Amino acid sequence: MRPYVFVNCAMSADGKISTIERRQVKISGKDDFDRVDRIKAGTDGIMVGIGTVLADNPSLTVKSADRKAERSASGRDENPVRIVVDSMARTPADADILVKGSGRRIIAVSAAAPADRVNTLRNRAEVIVLGERSVDLTALMDALGERGIGRLMVEGGGTLIWGLFAAGLVDEFRTYIGSVVIGGSAAPTPVDGEGFFRESDFPRLSLKGIERIDDGVLLTWSVEK
Amino acid sequence: MRPYVFVNCAMSADGKISTIERRQVKISGKDDFDRVDRIKAGTDGIMVGIGTVLADNPSLTVKSADRKAERSASGRDENPVRIVVDSMARTPADADILVKGSGRRIIAVSAAAPADRVNTLRNRAEVIVLGERSVDLTALMDALGERGIGRLMVEGGGTLIWGLFAAGLVDEFRTYIGSVVIGGSAAPTPVDGEGFFRESDFPRLSLKGIERIDDGVLLTWSVEK
Repeated sequence: MRPYVFVNCAMSADGKISTIERRQVKISGKDDFDRVDRIKAGTDGIMVGIGTVLADNPSLTVKSADRKAERSASGRDENPVRIVVDSMARTPADADILVKGSGRRIIAVSAAAPADRVNTLRNRAEVIVLGERSVDLTALMDALGERGIGRLMVEGGGTLIWGLFAAGLVDEFRTYIGSVVIGGSAAPTPVDGEGFFRESDFPRLSLKGIERIDDGVLLTWSVEK
Repeated sequence: MRPYVFVNCAMSADGKISTIERRQVKISGKDDFDRVDRIKAGTDGIMVGIGTVLADNPSLTVKSADRKAERSASGRDENPVRIVVDSMARTPADADILVKGSGRRIIAVSAAAPADRVNTLRNRAEVIVLGERSVDLTALMDALGERGIGRLMVEGGGTLIWGLFAAGLVDEFRTYIGSVVIGGSAAPTPVDGEGFFRESDFPRLSLKGIERIDDGVLLTWSVEK
């Protein structure tokens, strides 16, 4: 049983998640930050791609002390299992995701990842090797299911989310749309990668919720199977 | 007095206006087509960039017979003035925008456009020359205001819309968000071009309307000045 996978991201009104230089920008406000913290605290795992680790160095920890205490009180780690999809094992050993906060970490690498880097990471996280040159995402989801992860939140970036959509692994897609325009034909978007070429291949969505938060709007879509 | 400029576009849930190959795709449904036709019938001018002409060959005519009759009855042309921003005068002489439907056409070119192409286009449209190597959009807006265009609808594509945002010429930004995922780091988006590098340069928007249409949602943003 693979986890229920929901993607959560914030984009500008014109569909960008950061600038062309991948600078981290403020797209939402404090109410949305609190919403993200709340749903993070309610998940078993939170996943990002290596591009996001290298660009933003997120810790992916739960921020609210109350929510951490609540998780501990119910016998869980303070933070959901933090997972990096990192085909070539490029996660820096001092990345915040590895050193900040308590709880388990999993780094998924491919068979092509250099052994010395993999060994370094094994000191800080559980390393799972899946796929020849890039991580086999379907196999990874099975591995996460086996490890008891029932609900998985994906925070980005666009390359990982593309891989998940291309493999048919996304159940829900939540986009917070903020009140700025970023622009740029090469600026990162929620779903990057190669893209779907044919209309018949597009994942079809169903709009489940519309909610005004801060100066923008949160759209919740379920992915039709 | 320059026109009131509103951008209207349809994008996928992940912020794409077409595939990486620029194939025209169905993002909205019949209620949204009707909405677009209604607002088109209510404008003085409708503008696209040359990329959109070459990729989609739109006629930009009003589709509803009633709306055309209504325009005629009030002494206007059946169609709003159709305007192409076309720095190098690449609009084909048989483009639908030039040959389909009645009413005025304006092609804005730069001083760098080849004279033979400009002369061909002069048989089919009013040609306005503005800017050295690319059309000066601010000067174009002034020229359109002088020609009696009070309300201008911009249909795309992303390069033109970028140019308008970069020049501070957009008053309103309407995005219909459809229930599909397209993906692709190189797929066209509503605002392409170079993009804004600094957060302080981002145009700031104010959310004026949220409306469910077909299987998606229409967001109407005004641009803060």
